[in-house]
Amino acid sequence: MSAFHWQQQGTDGAARAGTLHTAHGDVSTPTFMPVGTVGTVKAMTMDAVRSTGAGIVLGNTYHLMLRPGAERVAALGGLHRFMDWPGPILTDSGGFQVMSLGALRKLDADGVTFRSHIDGSKHRLTPESSTRIQHLLDATITMCFDECPALPAEDEVIAKSMRLSMAWAARSREAFVARQGYAQFGIVQGGTSTQLRAESVAALRGIGFEGYAIGGLAVGEGQALMFSTLEATVPLLPADRPRYLMGVGTPDDLVGGVQRGIDMFDCVMPTRAGRTARAYTAQGQMNLRNARFADDAAPLEQDCDCLACTRHSRAYLHHLFRAGEMLGPMLLTWHNIAYYQRLMRGLRSAIVEGRLDAHAAALRAGWQSGPPAPAPA
Amino acid sequence: MSAFHWQQQGTDGAARAGTLHTAHGDVSTPTFMPVGTVGTVKAMTMDAVRSTGAGIVLGNTYHLMLRPGAERVAALGGLHRFMDWPGPILTDSGGFQVMSLGALRKLDADGVTFRSHIDGSKHRLTPESSTRIQHLLDATITMCFDECPALPAEDEVIAKSMRLSMAWAARSREAFVARQGYAQFGIVQGGTSTQLRAESVAALRGIGFEGYAIGGLAVGEGQALMFSTLEATVPLLPADRPRYLMGVGTPDDLVGGVQRGIDMFDCVMPTRAGRTARAYTAQGQMNLRNARFADDAAPLEQDCDCLACTRHSRAYLHHLFRAGEMLGPMLLTWHNIAYYQRLMRGLRSAIVEGRLDAHAAALRAGWQSGPPAPAPA
Repeated sequence: MSAFHWQQQGTDGAARAGTLHTAHGDVSTPTFMPVGTVGTVKAMTMDAVRSTGAGIVLGNTYHLMLRPGAERVAALGGLHRFMDWPGPILTDSGGFQVMSLGALRKLDADGVTFRSHIDGSKHRLTPESSTRIQHLLDATITMCFDECPALPAEDEVIAKSMRLSMAWAARSREAFVARQGYAQFGIVQGGTSTQLRAESVAALRGIGFEGYAIGGLAVGEGQALMFSTLEATVPLLPADRPRYLMGVGTPDDLVGGVQRGIDMFDCVMPTRAGRTARAYTAQGQMNLRNARFADDAAPLEQDCDCLACTRHSRAYLHHLFRAGEMLGPMLLTWHNIAYYQRLMRGLRSAIVEGRLDAHAAALRAGWQSGPPAPAPA
Repeated sequence: MSAFHWQQQGTDGAARAGTLHTAHGDVSTPTFMPVGTVGTVKAMTMDAVRSTGAGIVLGNTYHLMLRPGAERVAALGGLHRFMDWPGPILTDSGGFQVMSLGALRKLDADGVTFRSHIDGSKHRLTPESSTRIQHLLDATITMCFDECPALPAEDEVIAKSMRLSMAWAARSREAFVARQGYAQFGIVQGGTSTQLRAESVAALRGIGFEGYAIGGLAVGEGQALMFSTLEATVPLLPADRPRYLMGVGTPDDLVGGVQRGIDMFDCVMPTRAGRTARAYTAQGQMNLRNARFADDAAPLEQDCDCLACTRHSRAYLHHLFRAGEMLGPMLLTWHNIAYYQRLMRGLRSAIVEGRLDAHAAALRAGWQSGPPAPAPA
């Protein structure tokens, strides 16, 4: 087994195509990582996830430490075996989730004390314990434990938070047990301030990680500010390491992120949308609950190879959601993850073939063309 | 394509093994038909249903006429195409569901007027309209429209209801459009009265159907009365036609039904149980929410080839139900249908090999042995 590394296979402007080599297999980048918060990509079997071409999935330290517990997952052979995903897994550090608890958590310089959203029980996360939990889960990629304030916030608040996160990054690195093919990513913070982002990158590069994530974006600042922050930040990152934009986003966000040099993404959007009847397609979003699809004999998307599109009509999907049947969310989540994976494969080909901007423009034109017309039965 | 018929391949006592030949393929009997009330076997893809070896599934006239509507299903190519099940489909006539509506329905000699449980809209079902709807759905096996009182009931009530159902059976037969490989089944009524059941069988045989169902059982009378009613009724049915015990039942009910000459069963139990964490196994029922499974590294059943058993531990299933994740119902429903299909295959082999009673005794002993002990991680 080789060391964890990212190998570049092509560039187009700032965008990169490559392969991530890990202890649990290789992943083509740019890549979208389906979110498996508590050890399941909601409403999908792992066979279904695999069928979409997904190469790496996410797990969540905060959720898994509370239920079923990291020691338990370790005793059961680790998260890969637990959830039937022998491929690479990246785990969130829990920092973002704990911060979202609001009144239920108390921050100090050493870590965060919080109450479980499940049963109110008291817990504590520190850089050391988060790193140890991710080790117990057997995460292929461990994330640093960080603090992340909601935007907008005072520059001073952002600066203080970022510096705390950088101190925690050093402690996370110290606690990380290096293993062949495993990695730990640092997380760049600093809000939308170019200066703070640069300071954060410098701190992380000083520590040294196998990959670098950009955190603290897509938290309310809007796409334009997110993109300009990426433009200022990404060029500061080492070119030979993978770059991960956390919690992003819409198909349009992904295209913009890739154009700005991002290799990895994760987001609950495609799975969450699937459960609420919203489909991502080359012609924009479709709400399958809409009455216009009641008699529509066409597949959701003509060229999609997911189960929903190859075997069923829009009318059937519409019916399932109207009837409140579980198969609706199951099929539409599957489709959305398939769409996101297809989107990433298309971007990768366009980078390798040096036609990314034209490809991106065509994608955006497609999304704006609106949902396809109903097909007669 | 040959005519719809049932071919006997073996007997053991009153039990029969055979094959049902239909326009949509062949089905080995005895068979359990998963229930796909509104055009989906709840929480399963049809690929999953197929993987269990299921040969025929159920649809429901009452539910499908209300939503999405029989004309719509017909315009979309019929129920087979709509739900991705090219194999045989049997449709309930709607009689049983309409009767369950209680105050929402009004019975007259011609049919039943009722209000939809979905939106309160007014509808009417008669033997003719039920038969026509099943034709629109493209049901492989159409059921007669009948009336079915809840038990216990006065003999007089049962008798009157049965005679109305027999009059409706004649009208249903009249309305049925014969097609090569398609069938219509009459439904024997008469409660637990041997005499009324015999009268009902005579009436139905006088009309003549491709198969015979026994209705009005498993409605509160208890297993002993159900079995004694079967013992009195089944021998009166023509030996060369398939026999279907409607809405039954537990694994133990199925074994008893098969031993008394039944070829076909349907029941919501395995799917409903799967959604509420209850698993059917060779060692009886297991409730996966039970804390004893939290650290249990063993599969649900050692020799089961379903996705839940081949890829996951009981601990993982326990976790999914505790966390309220959709994959729990998905995996456990899959397992339960796989268990029911395996049960039927086992019964069939035992009939062919003339060892049904010993096999049934072994099955019952297994169910009473209780759930397996937790396996250490």
